[in-house]
Amino acid sequence: SERLGYFPAGIRSRLEEGIRRLHKLAGNALTDNMHIVFADGSTPLLSLVTMILQSSSKGLPLKVWARKPFYSGYSSLSFGDLVKFVGQEENETAAAADESLVEFVTSPNNPDGEIRSPVLSRPLTVFDKAYSWPMYTFMDEPFNSSAHPLSLWTLSKVTGHASSRVGWAIVGDKALADAMQMLACPIGCPMESQMVAISAIEHVLQTEGEIFKWGRAKFTERWRKIEDGFRNASCYRIRNPLAQGFDRFSQKVYKQTPPYLWMECLNLPAQKSCGDMLRSFGIKCRDGEYFGMPPSYARLSLYVATPVFDVLMQKLTNMFATTC
Amino acid sequence: SERLGYFPAGIRSRLEEGIRRLHKLAGNALTDNMHIVFADGSTPLLSLVTMILQSSSKGLPLKVWARKPFYSGYSSLSFGDLVKFVGQEENETAAAADESLVEFVTSPNNPDGEIRSPVLSRPLTVFDKAYSWPMYTFMDEPFNSSAHPLSLWTLSKVTGHASSRVGWAIVGDKALADAMQMLACPIGCPMESQMVAISAIEHVLQTEGEIFKWGRAKFTERWRKIEDGFRNASCYRIRNPLAQGFDRFSQKVYKQTPPYLWMECLNLPAQKSCGDMLRSFGIKCRDGEYFGMPPSYARLSLYVATPVFDVLMQKLTNMFATTC
Repeated sequence: SERLGYFPAGIRSRLEEGIRRLHKLAGNALTDNMHIVFADGSTPLLSLVTMILQSSSKGLPLKVWARKPFYSGYSSLSFGDLVKFVGQEENETAAAADESLVEFVTSPNNPDGEIRSPVLSRPLTVFDKAYSWPMYTFMDEPFNSSAHPLSLWTLSKVTGHASSRVGWAIVGDKALADAMQMLACPIGCPMESQMVAISAIEHVLQTEGEIFKWGRAKFTERWRKIEDGFRNASCYRIRNPLAQGFDRFSQKVYKQTPPYLWMECLNLPAQKSCGDMLRSFGIKCRDGEYFGMPPSYARLSLYVATPVFDVLMQKLTNMFATTC
Repeated sequence: SERLGYFPAGIRSRLEEGIRRLHKLAGNALTDNMHIVFADGSTPLLSLVTMILQSSSKGLPLKVWARKPFYSGYSSLSFGDLVKFVGQEENETAAAADESLVEFVTSPNNPDGEIRSPVLSRPLTVFDKAYSWPMYTFMDEPFNSSAHPLSLWTLSKVTGHASSRVGWAIVGDKALADAMQMLACPIGCPMESQMVAISAIEHVLQTEGEIFKWGRAKFTERWRKIEDGFRNASCYRIRNPLAQGFDRFSQKVYKQTPPYLWMECLNLPAQKSCGDMLRSFGIKCRDGEYFGMPPSYARLSLYVATPVFDVLMQKLTNMFATTC
């Protein structure tokens, strides 16, 4: 019954401690003197952050902007007359002129894995750091939470526990952190999902990041196959930057292994999108337009089991051979 | 891994089915042709409902009102310039004149257990039905969800699993239900807490509501002791209505056994509240002012283990004997 009541003792504090140590192990964020806000995943954090910024802004609606290609989920941040996502409508120049607009910086970016910095200079920028983990990219300097005091994180992209809905924000300002926590899990997040998160995170800590190494090995192997496959496909191009940089986690240079393949189809038949082409070969994807890009772009998820990935490569190879 | 991904198969539908059957067993709400929206507890539902109503209202702020004594938690619905809870400021006449204001009807009411109907006639009223379960009150007609298409419910007051954060709304309008679900658990509620809720609810169903009978027996015994104790306390009064009515669950008349004692202190020393008096005898309580009432009122929680309740009764008896 100690765990039945509203605030089961020791759960939240243990999860918070685990998360701070996890960031230290991965080397992806400084958390000293920062507040941790918990929510049921990072998706609710995205919308409640816009609500809070809206409630203290003067104009209606609050405009939210991200550079293209942007995460397709941001379009659902638009909410009544209160919040409007304008990533599609406004280019960088227009956004820069829009004084009250808030920039979302996804880094590494979804869909392409690009390492990004803010384009606009605003007092507060929202950093979506979902993919800033060693299995996806090199870890150079840890994210400077003091300089950028609002970043959003999710367990789903670290340990895979998407259905447990565990997200958190690293927040510098106490008043903002309190306001966020009042909207996200105001009476604590579900105890059971916190316990699963504690188990998963403490396992990562105890094994000194074995899952990071495993994920890197898996994704490195997959990207080798992807790059091999695209090498002779003259009508299809990988559009991920696949940057490399010195990686403090392994103490050597690491080339990015993002979880999504972001690609372009060249010489498409009229009226046909890259997504149409892929789907006609039985390949699941999300069309470029969801990310603010032309229909010649598409995103393929690499969050699949190995047998599924192998079939995906066969289908791509077949498409390359048949249409190019 | 089938349960690791975003939408684990069969979980949400099984919980929803359990909840519809639970309402049927308790006889407290009709759910046919109604949509169920899930959230992490009913507290987030309260605020997201006001956000959605605000986003489609013309004026700023959206005013939310409830008749006194009102649930103390409603004051935290106030949010920036967007939403303002005016239960404290506006009496019934003022509220009735405020055309765009939204009424919250808590029935049975917190703090006193009163069975309530809307005071204002508005197109949409929000019903907070947290305490509409057989352990707290008689079950006459099931709540007519078609006539009142927005009611909020929580597992914490049925099976006690407060820390699992499982709340739901019964909603008539599909568009409103979709808008609510977009803000509450947009990618599903945490799987683990849903599984705990499924286990708990299916147990209640399999035992044909044994917990309702157990809860009634417990609370009936406690209220007998409370009423006995107050009988000779001329300076203290029970302020719960403790109504009785025909109960379809047991097929006989049942007198309410609410989970909170709502009381008034008479002949208080100057500058002293009822809460001060209670606390000076070591009794935990919440002051009447949180519920929009004078400081001569206070609410005591009966959600305590039996030994704690027995000590509470001793302390009350001591206070009655010493101060009256």
